[in-house]
Amino acid sequence: MSIVYLIGAGPGDPGLITVRGLQYLAAADVVLYDHLVPARLLRAARPDAEQIDVGTAAPQPLEQEAICYLLAEKAREGKTVARLKWGDPFVFDSGGAGALFLHEQGGRFEVVPGLPAGIAVPGYAGIPITSPGGGDTGTFIRGHEDEGKTPASIDWTSLARLDGTLVCYAGPQQLPEMLGALLAHGRPSEDSAAVVYDGTLATQQTIAGTLREVATAVEQGTD
Amino acid sequence: MSIVYLIGAGPGDPGLITVRGLQYLAAADVVLYDHLVPARLLRAARPDAEQIDVGTAAPQPLEQEAICYLLAEKAREGKTVARLKWGDPFVFDSGGAGALFLHEQGGRFEVVPGLPAGIAVPGYAGIPITSPGGGDTGTFIRGHEDEGKTPASIDWTSLARLDGTLVCYAGPQQLPEMLGALLAHGRPSEDSAAVVYDGTLATQQTIAGTLREVATAVEQGTD
Repeated sequence: MSIVYLIGAGPGDPGLITVRGLQYLAAADVVLYDHLVPARLLRAARPDAEQIDVGTAAPQPLEQEAICYLLAEKAREGKTVARLKWGDPFVFDSGGAGALFLHEQGGRFEVVPGLPAGIAVPGYAGIPITSPGGGDTGTFIRGHEDEGKTPASIDWTSLARLDGTLVCYAGPQQLPEMLGALLAHGRPSEDSAAVVYDGTLATQQTIAGTLREVATAVEQGTD
Repeated sequence: MSIVYLIGAGPGDPGLITVRGLQYLAAADVVLYDHLVPARLLRAARPDAEQIDVGTAAPQPLEQEAICYLLAEKAREGKTVARLKWGDPFVFDSGGAGALFLHEQGGRFEVVPGLPAGIAVPGYAGIPITSPGGGDTGTFIRGHEDEGKTPASIDWTSLARLDGTLVCYAGPQQLPEMLGALLAHGRPSEDSAAVVYDGTLATQQTIAGTLREVATAVEQGTD
């Protein structure tokens, strides 16, 4: 059984994949990628490599299982497999399930971490997610996996109390709800805040201001 | 004034720098690096590039200011400058202060994010920092900046309550205190936990178990 590389492709700018990730991609016999992987990155694959589009970045469990079987099948055929994932395979992603499946099947795999959007997108917007005097923590919050509502289980009380930076992964549908929840749970409305769209892409846009101002701007934008 | 690149070198394995970061490093006239940047990475610099060792990864404020002046001075001499930093410039690092300084001096700079240890080290240890059903958050906690004690301001009550993964940046001195604080503030002692030493290096070692087991192992190791 050949090896499967679970590779983080980074958040959008193709220059943000790691050197190791690009090297494995360029050597692979088979490349499985999801829709958020930058198309320009796929040009680094061998011209004769089989390229398989496996759909959205956050597949449903059944699709996820099908992808796992496909990874194992290709590896069993003796092919070196690169599974390219948006951001990092282990940050709000299914890389853990994939790795567990391959382990249970007796397969070999290697994880190549990638830059999560929660790190690179603020960086491109010039926003340090931590800074001296800016608190002791930096927290990623999952909001983007559900199509509609924000996960009900999020502990907004604790998150509003933490003195550090909060980074919400959110689509346009979850964003107003997440910002509203932070304010409702006591996060100071004068805290600095920013919303970044299309992070690290040429189309990136940032709205910055106080938490209250940003929440209002987002509400108006979604009316 | 030439441009200054604030580049994240990643957490140790030289293959974990980004493609963009390596490209800027290879083109720079001057390279400033700190002690945690992998030595092998510096071989990618031009043979005629000036290489300046600026000391520890977490400099004191005065040293930090001196480094900022040096960056600006080299840029004013018309030299392209690469400032290589361990991990990511904006995660528990002084990249924000450097960027602000250059902005105030009218300098040009570009941030190239890097893989923070908090993402890549668990990845290399096979530990997903988030997974479906494993909570809604992933939190980095600063413990490594102070030489001795853990920062007193850390809100352990909120951190112990969050249902997601906590990633502590800690040296051997802070580690027992941080694990003890989590247990004392009610984090379940049966939660899964791991301590990783020398993350992403050839010497990487992992202790895994329950939070109680790992805390005990760490206590015994430091006796």
